[in-house]
Amino acid sequence: MGESLTGFRTERPLPAPGEQRSALAEQRGAEPRRAAGVPERRGSIGTQRDGRPGPAEGHEAVMLLDRARAEVDPVLRAALDSLPGPMRRIALYHFGWEQADGTPAEGGSGKAIRPALVLAAAAALGGPEARLGAVRAAAAVELVHNFTLLHDDVMDRDATRRHRPTAWTVFGDADAILGGDALQALALRLLATDPHPAARAAAARLADCVVELCAGQHADTALERCDPGEVTLEEVLAMAEAKTGALLGSACAIGGLYAGAGDADVAALDAFGREAGLAFQLIDDVIGIWGDPHRTGKPVGADLAARKKSLPVVAAFTSGTPAAAELADLYARPCEKEDLDHIALTVERAGGRDWAQGQAADRMARAMQQLARAVPDPEAAGGLLALAEFVTRRSS
Amino acid sequence: MGESLTGFRTERPLPAPGEQRSALAEQRGAEPRRAAGVPERRGSIGTQRDGRPGPAEGHEAVMLLDRARAEVDPVLRAALDSLPGPMRRIALYHFGWEQADGTPAEGGSGKAIRPALVLAAAAALGGPEARLGAVRAAAAVELVHNFTLLHDDVMDRDATRRHRPTAWTVFGDADAILGGDALQALALRLLATDPHPAARAAAARLADCVVELCAGQHADTALERCDPGEVTLEEVLAMAEAKTGALLGSACAIGGLYAGAGDADVAALDAFGREAGLAFQLIDDVIGIWGDPHRTGKPVGADLAARKKSLPVVAAFTSGTPAAAELADLYARPCEKEDLDHIALTVERAGGRDWAQGQAADRMARAMQQLARAVPDPEAAGGLLALAEFVTRRSS
Repeated sequence: MGESLTGFRTERPLPAPGEQRSALAEQRGAEPRRAAGVPERRGSIGTQRDGRPGPAEGHEAVMLLDRARAEVDPVLRAALDSLPGPMRRIALYHFGWEQADGTPAEGGSGKAIRPALVLAAAAALGGPEARLGAVRAAAAVELVHNFTLLHDDVMDRDATRRHRPTAWTVFGDADAILGGDALQALALRLLATDPHPAARAAAARLADCVVELCAGQHADTALERCDPGEVTLEEVLAMAEAKTGALLGSACAIGGLYAGAGDADVAALDAFGREAGLAFQLIDDVIGIWGDPHRTGKPVGADLAARKKSLPVVAAFTSGTPAAAELADLYARPCEKEDLDHIALTVERAGGRDWAQGQAADRMARAMQQLARAVPDPEAAGGLLALAEFVTRRSS
Repeated sequence: MGESLTGFRTERPLPAPGEQRSALAEQRGAEPRRAAGVPERRGSIGTQRDGRPGPAEGHEAVMLLDRARAEVDPVLRAALDSLPGPMRRIALYHFGWEQADGTPAEGGSGKAIRPALVLAAAAALGGPEARLGAVRAAAAVELVHNFTLLHDDVMDRDATRRHRPTAWTVFGDADAILGGDALQALALRLLATDPHPAARAAAARLADCVVELCAGQHADTALERCDPGEVTLEEVLAMAEAKTGALLGSACAIGGLYAGAGDADVAALDAFGREAGLAFQLIDDVIGIWGDPHRTGKPVGADLAARKKSLPVVAAFTSGTPAAAELADLYARPCEKEDLDHIALTVERAGGRDWAQGQAADRMARAMQQLARAVPDPEAAGGLLALAEFVTRRSS
């Protein structure tokens, strides 16, 4: 599978969690071994051996996502309906519930991974009652996620989201910014009006998370302005943690708060979500280069065409391989559509794909370790585990 | 003083509150008579007879503003210092506490009118103890105000704020958007971590207010895209209430909440702030056309050069006077700097200036009526009254 990337050879394309450690993991002194008490589900991270989700785990996650969607959507809809007309229209369009002309639309509002994590974490530590009490908080987390999507799309000039034109392309920059601002306010309003004793701590945590998301998006735009050769893997991993890991971590932590969990368990849930979030981002970046646009809503090669410094690309650039030098030449040229396959192959030959999949496996192993700390009962941890595996299972 | 605007003649340029009612006020059935229990301070609204603030009232407001600044700034600074590096830098620049290169700067962070209103409202209904307890909430309100300024400047492409280049011109659009997002999060975080029993209700109110501010800014940008002849005074007044009145109203209402006030008093404080905010906006628009740039930080004629549909301009456009037709011709031409004085004179001849000053006086009279409802003791109401008069006293 091409040159080795970070000092070890990738003997096979699909390392299972805990079997292999990246040089970065070595540097950080992390211990990505499988956590005790968490059942082994080999080959379920990153690309599947047969390219499909394992039937049992996939179904569990899909059921949890569907249930979260069903529970959270009424709260979300009520929140959006409380907005003044023009803000409501932007929000309903962004959520996929209305067309641009205001007529109803069906679906497309995303997979509800974050609300499902809130609810699964609450259920894992507090049972069905805690789960029920956390629905409003789950909706708040989803609102924050969507506020950042609206703003990120403006900044990144991304024209497509969930197979539809992004809000700023339809309503203009100003309204997309205002729509995002209003969704952030709605999120924190949901928590401010939630009588649950955990609501205050959840609001503080969610506000902190917003700040971290902003810093992550700042780092992302700043890194995009850098020459690819100047960017380190540490920088781009830290950015991905802030941009993606932080909200998945907060989702899990907030679920824990609603179950009355103590500080240590809440911190472990946060770390679980962060590590799973990084794994998700790594796989998402792999899909952004080699993935299936019908499954992901993202055109293949889009990240390469945009010269995005995604994780596999930076890994390839910093690999010190002959393919890395070739990649630098390719990235320096004006972008031609017919070059994209060649660039993707070069990133792969420089080890970017293997590294990303290995890192994703490492991160998932760490996530499981944290999960076992917060939820020692494997039965109770099953929902969170299924969701974490689901988000990292999407394959090329 | 030129043609009459709305069916009555302006016998003199400086109507005192309650002496004169606009056609709009008549339509709305409002009762802008002086409220019982509020001392009369004639001629203190809008342009002064001698063009200067009365010494006693001005000093009281300046003292209240200085005190608010001194109490709130440490909380604001601590909040900004908690931000990650790049977000902190944008925020400190925007607040005027750092130069663009990160070196310290002095002052320029605005007049602290909104925090002063929070504190004055708390003091009016709850005395010094309530005032002290509301400092964190006052900082939260100021953070929300500054978040909206950061975003509005991006959307409006305004290049100057408080005599300095706006944040987006220095750091770019993306970072100005992110800086604003982070300030909104900080504001709601301050309330989420405030142990005061009023903090939850204040957070919900502030979040609602953010939604209204967004709707107001949306209306503003939407109105700017309209032909001036299509815009009604009602629309532009409603926009100004959402964009400016809402946050001044929330500031007063939140102060009341921190004093343990009941719903009726909180509602009256909100209405007081809203009406004073509208008066402020009317005078601010007058200054935007005829004002002194050294006092306001806004270049004279800037609103006309930008063809802004400010309140006096819309009043002039909809006056049905010969000057209105002339104004329509002038607005249709490309903007030349040497035309600005002529346009300003035409707006004045169409009655736009008189109308705005009359409206400001009406609004202040209504504000005083609401204030007397919430704070019947004139002694206790003095601080709020002084602040409301201060913001509407800035004159050409």
